[in-house]
Amino acid sequence: MDLLWKLLQIDSPSGDEGAMADWLVAEIGTNMPEVRVERIGDSVIAVRGKAPTVAVFAHIDTIGFTLGYDRQLIRIGGPAPKDGVKLRMAGGDAVGKLRVGKAGAWKLGGKTDAAPGTRWVYAAEPKQSGDEIVSPYLDNRAGVWAALQALTRCENVAVAFTTGEEHSGQGAYVCARRLYEGYAIYQALISDITWDTKHVHCGDGVAISLRDSMTPRQRYLDRILALAELSGVSYQREIESSGGSDGGYIQRSGCPIDWVFVGAPQKHPHTSAERVRISDLNAMADMLVSLVNGLHEL
Amino acid sequence: MDLLWKLLQIDSPSGDEGAMADWLVAEIGTNMPEVRVERIGDSVIAVRGKAPTVAVFAHIDTIGFTLGYDRQLIRIGGPAPKDGVKLRMAGGDAVGKLRVGKAGAWKLGGKTDAAPGTRWVYAAEPKQSGDEIVSPYLDNRAGVWAALQALTRCENVAVAFTTGEEHSGQGAYVCARRLYEGYAIYQALISDITWDTKHVHCGDGVAISLRDSMTPRQRYLDRILALAELSGVSYQREIESSGGSDGGYIQRSGCPIDWVFVGAPQKHPHTSAERVRISDLNAMADMLVSLVNGLHEL
Amino acid sequence: MDLLWKLLQIDSPSGDEGAMADWLVAEIGTNMPEVRVERIGDSVIAVRGKAPTVAVFAHIDTIGFTLGYDRQLIRIGGPAPKDGVKLRMAGGDAVGKLRVGKAGAWKLGGKTDAAPGTRWVYAAEPKQSGDEIVSPYLDNRAGVWAALQALTRCENVAVAFTTGEEHSGQGAYVCARRLYEGYAIYQALISDITWDTKHVHCGDGVAISLRDSMTPRQRYLDRILALAELSGVSYQREIESSGGSDGGYIQRSGCPIDWVFVGAPQKHPHTSAERVRISDLNAMADMLVSLVNGLHEL
Repeated sequence: MDLLWKLLQIDSPSGDEGAMADWLVAEIGTNMPEVRVERIGDSVIAVRGKAPTVAVFAHIDTIGFTLGYDRQLIRIGGPAPKDGVKLRMAGGDAVGKLRVGKAGAWKLGGKTDAAPGTRWVYAAEPKQSGDEIVSPYLDNRAGVWAALQALTRCENVAVAFTTGEEHSGQGAYVCARRLYEGYAIYQALISDITWDTKHVHCGDGVAISLRDSMTPRQRYLDRILALAELSGVSYQREIESSGGSDGGYIQRSGCPIDWVFVGAPQKHPHTSAERVRISDLNAMADMLVSLVNGLHEL
Repeated sequence: MDLLWKLLQIDSPSGDEGAMADWLVAEIGTNMPEVRVERIGDSVIAVRGKAPTVAVFAHIDTIGFTLGYDRQLIRIGGPAPKDGVKLRMAGGDAVGKLRVGKAGAWKLGGKTDAAPGTRWVYAAEPKQSGDEIVSPYLDNRAGVWAALQALTRCENVAVAFTTGEEHSGQGAYVCARRLYEGYAIYQALISDITWDTKHVHCGDGVAISLRDSMTPRQRYLDRILALAELSGVSYQREIESSGGSDGGYIQRSGCPIDWVFVGAPQKHPHTSAERVRISDLNAMADMLVSLVNGLHEL
Repeated sequence: MDLLWKLLQIDSPSGDEGAMADWLVAEIGTNMPEVRVERIGDSVIAVRGKAPTVAVFAHIDTIGFTLGYDRQLIRIGGPAPKDGVKLRMAGGDAVGKLRVGKAGAWKLGGKTDAAPGTRWVYAAEPKQSGDEIVSPYLDNRAGVWAALQALTRCENVAVAFTTGEEHSGQGAYVCARRLYEGYAIYQALISDITWDTKHVHCGDGVAISLRDSMTPRQRYLDRILALAELSGVSYQREIESSGGSDGGYIQRSGCPIDWVFVGAPQKHPHTSAERVRISDLNAMADMLVSLVNGLHEL
């Protein structure tokens, strides 16, 4: 999990993913000589093998805040902060506390004289306790970690590290297009984090989503579920009426790429204390590897 | 209308259109040797003639329900069911009744032990009474029927049978792109079903929409209306402030394809008893043929 | 400002931009022999220089009204009319007054027997008073004017005159695609009009937006802000939580084109009496020229 810890040190609220893209390009360039890397804006496409037929999408942006006028904090994506939560300037040292004001408006408290327009993120450090990790931004650092696992362990795979998922979906549109036009890829898996609910539980394995607000193509989903059964990896079937992922953007991209969501559940999403189980993350990586290899061989 | 009856026997809630795509590919392959067929996911493109310049878009998905946990029914698209309406498992035999519970939530009643994740559709059989057909899913089986009429009767035409219109528009984006890039098509007609209202009436002919929530390009619309006047086919001008169709997705596809909506009105949309007039459907097919031929010759 | 006055005489509510496209093609064809013009539907792309690397996007549509049944007025985009405001039929002579009825519904008053489906626009004539212009449709005639200034004053630049921004974004999707595929353009500036607020004031120069409902890519924004500082042109940094522009459509276009919004503030947006300062418009044109040249040389 060392790599996950490193990923959790990098700030990248939606729109400001440059540092994360830099890190990925350097990391893959240094440690994965068999992988071709292509940077598009701050999205990164990594391709391994002769002609991969499956792409893993992992978004590299996170929720956060833009400092507005009069110390107002404007949402980037959909953060769910508590009053008093500690914030840090993205890519900087300044700190402050979020204050929930009248009508639910958020303000930046503390002594900082930070300029309006700066981006702010949760300041909490990750902690591990037994099988559990508690940290901001496990959504989607854990998904990026799992995608890097797939890149390391699969001989034929593409990975799209996408920008803007939490806010607008910019990177998924761009990467879908590039993967379809440049690599004739028609099959995708979304490596992202989902919710612990009454029916999907932390500790019970990776979730495969049968639907969220979007409905993936059933025949592709059936193939995924058949492969999942054969995989021997611990997993849960998730059925939701809301929520979305890069899958939704792919679906509206004009590129005929099928997608299914594969991800570990977490508690307290979009807070400064997201909680996931390490066993679920390992199941997530194992499942992605199993599905990529299974789909590639079909 | 035999073909329409056949179409009404096939289940294809958004996301699960495989059976419908199979049927179309087989039907066209067997009975229309002059038509080239291309399947993209579960969307189907059919092309007839040397260089058609007009495409008819007909969505092949329908509204429906996903069975969730605890017998909850989750909407696919925007169904408008009544308490007690009979449902059938898509592509299966199991039946049950929809129950409207507290706060308007829908549950599946009856004895079935169906698995969460299965898709459900209205079970009612189509009926004809004089000039009227009463059936679920006339939206958009009637539009598919009319598009097949255009494919049979026009020597130069493309038809896009699109997935996901009721839920997300997936197929229209993909088909717009393919028709623009592969066939240089700039002109589209949307073959779909609209509403019986105070100003547009069942039995008064096909409706041509001057706008809905979207505004089609006026110069293209003017050309369509001029051709409609010349056609001799019975039609009504529709002006709406809401509603949408594959036209909206085409408009956001990045492909410069003009579109206008052409469709028969119906009563009780998205219920298990949609009502359309056969005379309106015949006007719809006649108008599509007239417009395709007229636009192609311009 | 003669050119702006001419632009204000042409009607082009979203969907009905044909006359504006005609005018632009003729104007550029006659007076700018060094510019290549390409018309796509009613959007227009103008390209100057050997290999421009920056595109200015200026939307050519405006808000307005469709006449519905029973003299109802249906919104095109988001007009903010007052009861009694004078309207004119787009491209015609008929006039009438907008009446705000029960539940806020709009009706067309007056003696006209105009046909349902006709488009209507504010009838007020532009006025100048010192440094201030008062007119409907400064949004976005002023942005089109500034883009034409950039086309006249920059030796290497592309301009996209886009349709549908107020209503659906059709033209920005199409032009982004064409500029990316045909001209390998990755950098855009949005030439549009913004709001006079507590923090951004008419008369204090052009606004550069650090964000609105969308977040532009930070590294591109940083480059723009550095160039703006060097430009010597009077400008204001704007930070908003809502609002949007063609930038949002570019972001979802699947084309990796960065964008930043550059525009003069106005009072009373989307009314028949929008107010902008001429000094701000000159700053807007100067800033666009400075940024286009600066980005092109980077």
